[in-house]
Amino acid sequence: MVMDFVTLIEDFSNFTGRRTVVSISIFAAVLCLCILVGHLLEEHRWVNESITAILIGFIVGIIILFASKGKNSHILRFDEELFFIYLLPPIIFNAGFQVKKKQFFHNFLTIMSFGVLGVFISFTIISVGCCWLFPKVGFEGLNLQDYLALGTIFSATDTVCTLQVLCQEETPRLYSLVFGEGVVNDATSVVLFNAIKQIDISSLESRTAVKVFGDFLYLFATSTILGVATGLLTAYALKTLYFGRHSTDREIALMSLMAYLSYMLAELLQLSGILTVFFCGIVMSHYAWHNVSENSRITTRHIFAALSFMAETFIFLYVGMDALDIDKWKTSETRVRTVFGIYGVTIFLILIGRAAFVFPLSVMSNYFSSPSERQLITFKHQVVIWWAGLMRGAVSIALAYNQFTLSGVTQDPDHATVITSTIVVVLFSTLVFGFLTRPLVVMLLPHRHRPDTSDPHGSDNGSPSKDDILFPFLSVGDPSSSGLLQAKQSLSMLFERPVHTIHVHWRKFDDTYMRPIFGGPRLCEEN
Amino acid sequence: MVMDFVTLIEDFSNFTGRRTVVSISIFAAVLCLCILVGHLLEEHRWVNESITAILIGFIVGIIILFASKGKNSHILRFDEELFFIYLLPPIIFNAGFQVKKKQFFHNFLTIMSFGVLGVFISFTIISVGCCWLFPKVGFEGLNLQDYLALGTIFSATDTVCTLQVLCQEETPRLYSLVFGEGVVNDATSVVLFNAIKQIDISSLESRTAVKVFGDFLYLFATSTILGVATGLLTAYALKTLYFGRHSTDREIALMSLMAYLSYMLAELLQLSGILTVFFCGIVMSHYAWHNVSENSRITTRHIFAALSFMAETFIFLYVGMDALDIDKWKTSETRVRTVFGIYGVTIFLILIGRAAFVFPLSVMSNYFSSPSERQLITFKHQVVIWWAGLMRGAVSIALAYNQFTLSGVTQDPDHATVITSTIVVVLFSTLVFGFLTRPLVVMLLPHRHRPDTSDPHGSDNGSPSKDDILFPFLSVGDPSSSGLLQAKQSLSMLFERPVHTIHVHWRKFDDTYMRPIFGGPRLCEEN
Repeated sequence: MVMDFVTLIEDFSNFTGRRTVVSISIFAAVLCLCILVGHLLEEHRWVNESITAILIGFIVGIIILFASKGKNSHILRFDEELFFIYLLPPIIFNAGFQVKKKQFFHNFLTIMSFGVLGVFISFTIISVGCCWLFPKVGFEGLNLQDYLALGTIFSATDTVCTLQVLCQEETPRLYSLVFGEGVVNDATSVVLFNAIKQIDISSLESRTAVKVFGDFLYLFATSTILGVATGLLTAYALKTLYFGRHSTDREIALMSLMAYLSYMLAELLQLSGILTVFFCGIVMSHYAWHNVSENSRITTRHIFAALSFMAETFIFLYVGMDALDIDKWKTSETRVRTVFGIYGVTIFLILIGRAAFVFPLSVMSNYFSSPSERQLITFKHQVVIWWAGLMRGAVSIALAYNQFTLSGVTQDPDHATVITSTIVVVLFSTLVFGFLTRPLVVMLLPHRHRPDTSDPHGSDNGSPSKDDILFPFLSVGDPSSSGLLQAKQSLSMLFERPVHTIHVHWRKFDDTYMRPIFGGPRLCEEN
Repeated sequence: MVMDFVTLIEDFSNFTGRRTVVSISIFAAVLCLCILVGHLLEEHRWVNESITAILIGFIVGIIILFASKGKNSHILRFDEELFFIYLLPPIIFNAGFQVKKKQFFHNFLTIMSFGVLGVFISFTIISVGCCWLFPKVGFEGLNLQDYLALGTIFSATDTVCTLQVLCQEETPRLYSLVFGEGVVNDATSVVLFNAIKQIDISSLESRTAVKVFGDFLYLFATSTILGVATGLLTAYALKTLYFGRHSTDREIALMSLMAYLSYMLAELLQLSGILTVFFCGIVMSHYAWHNVSENSRITTRHIFAALSFMAETFIFLYVGMDALDIDKWKTSETRVRTVFGIYGVTIFLILIGRAAFVFPLSVMSNYFSSPSERQLITFKHQVVIWWAGLMRGAVSIALAYNQFTLSGVTQDPDHATVITSTIVVVLFSTLVFGFLTRPLVVMLLPHRHRPDTSDPHGSDNGSPSKDDILFPFLSVGDPSSSGLLQAKQSLSMLFERPVHTIHVHWRKFDDTYMRPIFGGPRLCEEN
């Protein structure tokens, strides 16, 4: 009867797409495994969750490779649509939703210089370096556009590893710089990559670089406006319609859908979805989050974090599995010596390209920072920032697949070599550099234990540390010490940089006009 | 510059799948609209969210039909994979997770007789009726297997409308019967449908019916065991690994992934995913839910409800849009009179087919119930149960597409007629019967206001009402009244039906062995 029955409902399995079911089952099971192993290894000094996921992915890849008798090592082909439409939005939205807004906006100019100027510098060095050094190691199959694309591919950083190690409570400024640069870097790399794909190599002129930079600024402005507008619309809808009557499930559904919609709208309007959803997250946590019931607050905070966590783990798992993409390795015909030359050159250029902007730009940031603030980026912090951006991740792989394959398949041996090299560089940087991140951070920033606040929306007004003094005027309106603060605030406004004066005016504007309309705590309770 | 830039990044849009982006954007926007409109109309007497979603879907369909100049009315083709792999699992899991387990298991035999025997009776009446009456209204294009399939298609109920109206706090037993039947009915219909697709019509014998029923029992048992095993495994993992150290994001990710994995594993092993994920939900809320942090509890409870809510709204929206599937209407060549004959016959058979089992089986259930319990299903309740199952929904449409189309497309005019008829019957039953549900329930069950407990896991020990007396022995272990209860319990065990005796033994077993291993509140605090 059992066998009869199996044939009886076999048709149903076909009908729900057997291949999809198998893939999803394996991925869900392996993700669960990653979560458990990651939790068990959490306290371990050398390992972090990215590395765990990559290694588990690698092992699962080997098992599948054997099970399928050498035919394929991964269940899903690396799918740019899956990555850009389903995995990236929750990660970036959560980044915006959980970011300490205070720090982020105070360091806005520094973050932008790292994230935008830095990418342009790193891109130039890597492109020129590859163009010059690849033929020297015996690899000559690429054209000028390919070299420019390589420059952006290897400028897209992946700071997840470092952020797992840095403590937001202990070094808020450093955390904010590394984190903020990571988000802006993602957006800049993707936009620059697309700009390069459109450049007509035959009629290259000196104005092209200026034009690309101008386009980026336009894109940044419009994407930000769209994200802020979507966030404000959500906040307004929640505040107006739900007055006095909460429906937790609807509130959660509405916030999630509007966040996702902002990303999709940006893509539809050909803006940068990454920037849009990031600013949408910031606005939602600043206004909309305060208009919903207590249960909705807890749920949204954790569900966005959990989704982001799953998406990240999924991506690293995938990168691990992808390392064994046997077709690419077969198609690549480059000699072993040349291949190792490519790896060496690329990793060397990544190290140089990043150093070339982190240290000068930090010095510049320190120079423009007024001495009274004591907000200098110390040399130790500069090293951590430099190190934090050495890892390469899923964005690099997605861009490489886009440039050098057609729907994930390539017959060109040179292109296959670039793909395998990208995978190797990503694996090497994540495993080796990632591996050393925790010891490095522990060495440079000795641990000062402070109780964890599990509430990301709680105030981050820990006692000011040596490197990271909180801005005094951020507590404007705190009734207990308003006299002293008022005085400090006036002083600040006289002596400090324009961005800070703008900040004070913004706070007044926010309290007087924005919060009464869009919701949010009065008296500066938030971050 | 703007235009240059637009062409510049046009490629990126192609690369992320422009069509997908457009579809998702529209769906997300329309879902948001549904949520807002649904919330505004919540207090309205005649409307519920299913109807709102169908009507909004219909309007959006008309707009798209005009915008695309009559080419197509829906953005996505009705996709069985989307439905069975992504939309159904969260709905059913949430059903299991939020169900009042006490009531569900007490009414287990009644629910099973409605959900299994009932489907078989309804299926027989509708199949025989269609076979006899369709030729009489001039529709002759179907074979015997098609008629049998129609029997299952129109036996799959959709009780969402009714559950939105019934109050779980006021009439727990009725709610539990309607709800429980809905879940078991879904599973039975899908399994029966697949059994019929495999029957060799040419060699039909009397043993076939017995065999199909036997297969169902085997499937029910194995699916339940798989669901329970997955739930217990999750509870055990959470309890063992997270002792003394909580990580909310990981807990949430693990629970969601394991729930989804149970569904996928069942599909992979060719069992009933619906039943598996339902029992997985029950076990998780009974054990695993008690092993996680307070924040994880709030988050999981709301996120599963919100997901289920979004999936339901999405389905109804889709059904509304699908009504304008212009290709099907064009392919269908049946005369108008015949078409209305088909609608009439089908709706008549649905009414008769359901009455034919609800009233007799209720009487039977009352007969076997001991008089001391006063747990009779009154005639008013029987009418509500009968009415609750008259609506037809997405499962009917999914099964109809599976039987009468090839990947959503058919060239056969008769098959196109069946598809359009199914859509019309689903729309009619949901709109008309659904519309009348609230007034009917209000008329039959006068409202007795009682404060809502927003906690679905709180105890449901409201004061016993006339029809729904709670079982006294469910409070075993309550220290304040244990003497009296012990006596009552002994009496119960002597006089009551075996299923109740089993229940008492189960409680003892649960408290002594299961909870210490898998977690959960002691002293019967849960539902």
